[in-house]
Amino acid sequence: MTTIALDAMGGDHAPRVEVEGAILAARELGVRVLLVGVEATVRHELDRHKVRGLPIEIVNATDVITMTDSPSHAFRRKKESSLHVAARLVRDGQAEALVSAGNTGAVMTIARFVIGTLPSVDRPALAAAFPNMKEKISVILDVGANVDSKPAQIEQFAVMGEIYYRAIWGVKRPRIALLSIGEEEAKGNELTREAAILLKQLPLNFVGNVEGRDVFRGNVDVVVCDGFIGNIALKLSEGLVEHIGGMLKKAIKSSLRSQIGYALSKRAFDEFRKRTDYSETGGAPLLGVRGITVIGHGRSNPNAIKNAIRVAAELCRARVNEKIEQELSSAAAVPARG
Amino acid sequence: MTTIALDAMGGDHAPRVEVEGAILAARELGVRVLLVGVEATVRHELDRHKVRGLPIEIVNATDVITMTDSPSHAFRRKKESSLHVAARLVRDGQAEALVSAGNTGAVMTIARFVIGTLPSVDRPALAAAFPNMKEKISVILDVGANVDSKPAQIEQFAVMGEIYYRAIWGVKRPRIALLSIGEEEAKGNELTREAAILLKQLPLNFVGNVEGRDVFRGNVDVVVCDGFIGNIALKLSEGLVEHIGGMLKKAIKSSLRSQIGYALSKRAFDEFRKRTDYSETGGAPLLGVRGITVIGHGRSNPNAIKNAIRVAAELCRARVNEKIEQELSSAAAVPARG
Repeated sequence: MTTIALDAMGGDHAPRVEVEGAILAARELGVRVLLVGVEATVRHELDRHKVRGLPIEIVNATDVITMTDSPSHAFRRKKESSLHVAARLVRDGQAEALVSAGNTGAVMTIARFVIGTLPSVDRPALAAAFPNMKEKISVILDVGANVDSKPAQIEQFAVMGEIYYRAIWGVKRPRIALLSIGEEEAKGNELTREAAILLKQLPLNFVGNVEGRDVFRGNVDVVVCDGFIGNIALKLSEGLVEHIGGMLKKAIKSSLRSQIGYALSKRAFDEFRKRTDYSETGGAPLLGVRGITVIGHGRSNPNAIKNAIRVAAELCRARVNEKIEQELSSAAAVPARG
Repeated sequence: MTTIALDAMGGDHAPRVEVEGAILAARELGVRVLLVGVEATVRHELDRHKVRGLPIEIVNATDVITMTDSPSHAFRRKKESSLHVAARLVRDGQAEALVSAGNTGAVMTIARFVIGTLPSVDRPALAAAFPNMKEKISVILDVGANVDSKPAQIEQFAVMGEIYYRAIWGVKRPRIALLSIGEEEAKGNELTREAAILLKQLPLNFVGNVEGRDVFRGNVDVVVCDGFIGNIALKLSEGLVEHIGGMLKKAIKSSLRSQIGYALSKRAFDEFRKRTDYSETGGAPLLGVRGITVIGHGRSNPNAIKNAIRVAAELCRARVNEKIEQELSSAAAVPARG
């Protein structure tokens, strides 16, 4: 049975949402969940549910990282936080994966430096999943702020993204693309021009450069880019969805007079919200860490926590880390690397 | 009377849309329009309307640039194209501004090299206007693919963007921000860290670094970034709006059974479309060219063409180029420049 260390104090509504998500996961997914957090608080929450017989345990942690803690402060000064304790459980082999809906920067830093990175990985990459027009998923990485990436790091993002996509969405040869400002290679910047040369040499289904709009068109599966670009793309998309949602609500309210019309449109609107809810896709894995790490949205509901646990468990079962290490160490043996 | 050289062969439905847009502009805005294109075709289109007494003239051009021509091919090989002829009219002082809904790359290249750049400008920047949540406009530049910008170029984008925003939206001290991955300066990449130092020294209302989501929140007016980032942000936003529009249409159709409900929702949906139609904001100016240049969307309708002409005329009247040159040449005199 896969064991997941869940940061019970992470999200905006912790530990309630985390406890409920853990119960759903333990019931439906056949995983064992270690709820890591302030024991009395977590116990109190857990006692409100029927959990007898479920593979859920509490692991005590005396400190909590907040959304306003800087990653370095969280890493250096809060060693007894739920996140640190959960990361140590993974480092020491007592859990296979870490799941947290907490402070993203803190999770990235603590996962990277407490659990460590895979030997062949320069920097772990955060991969975000976007629903696209073909009603499939497009993954974009890095969105986790690995700025000023080198071409060889983009190459690693491609290898890790491909393995992740295959493991979770069952596509044998996912289409890998490089985010740029036009399909023509000459059109990119220095980084994309150099990275494209490396990507073409990999044993991947590299389909070339794509533009921003292609992220949503569904003609590619995995889009790689520098973390500065990816993070801006992610935040911009979240902002735009929020903006359009707001406009739409206003437009529906102002133009509908009859109760029935409003009720019917509300249903369409809810459907729209559901489809643009990125938390439904199960959290963003931080690929390249020496233990599976999945980061959920701070606003995760219990279902989103369950989905993040599901993704973590699937990545463990698919032996994603073994595969990443294997492919990257053999890619490193190719002489023509940048 | 301001004279505008309009590339009559530019957009997807040229010259019909251009001719209709020119007529609206000549009627409503008090500008003189030179319709530059294949004379017989443009004349044929113009003859379908009552234009007697309107300040509209046709200037013949024997060639046409298509959407698939590369910018360098268009620039080097199509010297008798409507775009070249229109640019020469501006260069030679027979028109004050160039407006085109044609091939964006070709317009940028031809404007830059035929008309030329202002003496203090390194590279012209394309500025896109986004409607934001406060029902105001946020401008982002460069979106025109000035890749691998230097900090001093970002500084120029800020100066040009501020003058443009003031001229068109009448805000005295627009709030200028630098696009990054967090508010903290330490969080950006090499370029943003260096650019922020320069921006703080300018006599502008620089409010610091913002994230992708802030583009839509309306808490800033002008957002500056490298053209690689800006172009990806623009295309990503267009792609996402298209995607959400499609989803929404589907959701409305599938969930509404009654005719009245559909009709009412349709109205809300149309309102939503209108508000997300970037072409309504009047085209994107290419700032820093030695003559005002405004680029419309290829899918422009006559109203969008009229709006692009309106923006061009307002930029002329506000003497935007004089102001840009003045501010940049005095900024260059400050010793502490990067």
